[in-house]
Amino acid sequence: MNGWVALVTVLSLIVYVATLVQVGRGRARYGVAAPAMTGHPEFERLVRVQANTLEGLVIYLPCLWLFALYAEPRLAAALGLVWIVGRVVYARAYAKDPATRSTGFGIQALATVALLIGALIGVILNLAHHGG
Amino acid sequence: MNGWVALVTVLSLIVYVATLVQVGRGRARYGVAAPAMTGHPEFERLVRVQANTLEGLVIYLPCLWLFALYAEPRLAAALGLVWIVGRVVYARAYAKDPATRSTGFGIQALATVALLIGALIGVILNLAHHGG
Amino acid sequence: MNGWVALVTVLSLIVYVATLVQVGRGRARYGVAAPAMTGHPEFERLVRVQANTLEGLVIYLPCLWLFALYAEPRLAAALGLVWIVGRVVYARAYAKDPATRSTGFGIQALATVALLIGALIGVILNLAHHGG
Repeated sequence: MNGWVALVTVLSLIVYVATLVQVGRGRARYGVAAPAMTGHPEFERLVRVQANTLEGLVIYLPCLWLFALYAEPRLAAALGLVWIVGRVVYARAYAKDPATRSTGFGIQALATVALLIGALIGVILNLAHHGG
Repeated sequence: MNGWVALVTVLSLIVYVATLVQVGRGRARYGVAAPAMTGHPEFERLVRVQANTLEGLVIYLPCLWLFALYAEPRLAAALGLVWIVGRVVYARAYAKDPATRSTGFGIQALATVALLIGALIGVILNLAHHGG
Repeated sequence: MNGWVALVTVLSLIVYVATLVQVGRGRARYGVAAPAMTGHPEFERLVRVQANTLEGLVIYLPCLWLFALYAEPRLAAALGLVWIVGRVVYARAYAKDPATRSTGFGIQALATVALLIGALIGVILNLAHHGG
């Protein structure tokens, strides 16, 4: 794997780890005992940030890797940085006010869609030229 | 990575994206404001379809890739198509009536189990012949 | 991919499948009809074990693979076995009493942190020596 893509992969995982750490801290701060995942609106926001980041991560990472393999690895890494920025903006905004979450969400969604479409085109062109 | 396996990977991710889009639409249609994930039974079905697809995706994708690497890439891609069909059937049935979700669930589960067992056997045979 | 790392990957996925099977069995045992994910405290524990294993899996697996690629594959596989042991200890303890879940959680968290930091260092050293 291209080194920049590997680096962006690890950094993206660290962003996700941070959302998990926030849920753990929120459990203590807002007094929500496991296994409950509800009970305090600010805790529920942290849970949703984590869950939404997870939902996005499982799409984004394979697209990042396939874009790097079949299209352009350095552009893949650059789009990965955009994803990271979008996810951080999203997490901070959502924790303050769920109504402001769409900017960060939009940034990371654009990066994911670009990686997905680029990977799809790269894979199809590769199949057309070289077969399976 | 084999081109057909890469193509099936991207198509599988698109199926998962569709389940996320359905949740977003359901939030608006059934009037469930973030961060709530409950509040309307039909919205909760869409949430469960998305969550179950995510739960399955993280098992299925690594098995697809390892089956392709250690067993047979074109058979991996074919089993991936079965997974996609099963997931689409499951999502449509669950949204209409949770009681009818088992056919689609069974189809994708069979594909996942075949990929998991094939990957396991392929990996073990490879270790037996070539070492780590 | 290194054969031992591939084997540990499949075994880790089987551990996660087991947590999903426990949720399915718990649904029947505690009479919680889909799509509900709450309603009985022991069922909710099984749901949390599954969800927490999923949350960990998506970090752990890419770190395992990158550690194997950029650092040391056999050490990656050994840390993967530690992750598996920690996850099994965690799941058994949580199902009995959520208050006892921290030992197993700590074991798997240490393995994940070691894989994450090792992967990060390996990737950075590789970029420093060879460029992207």
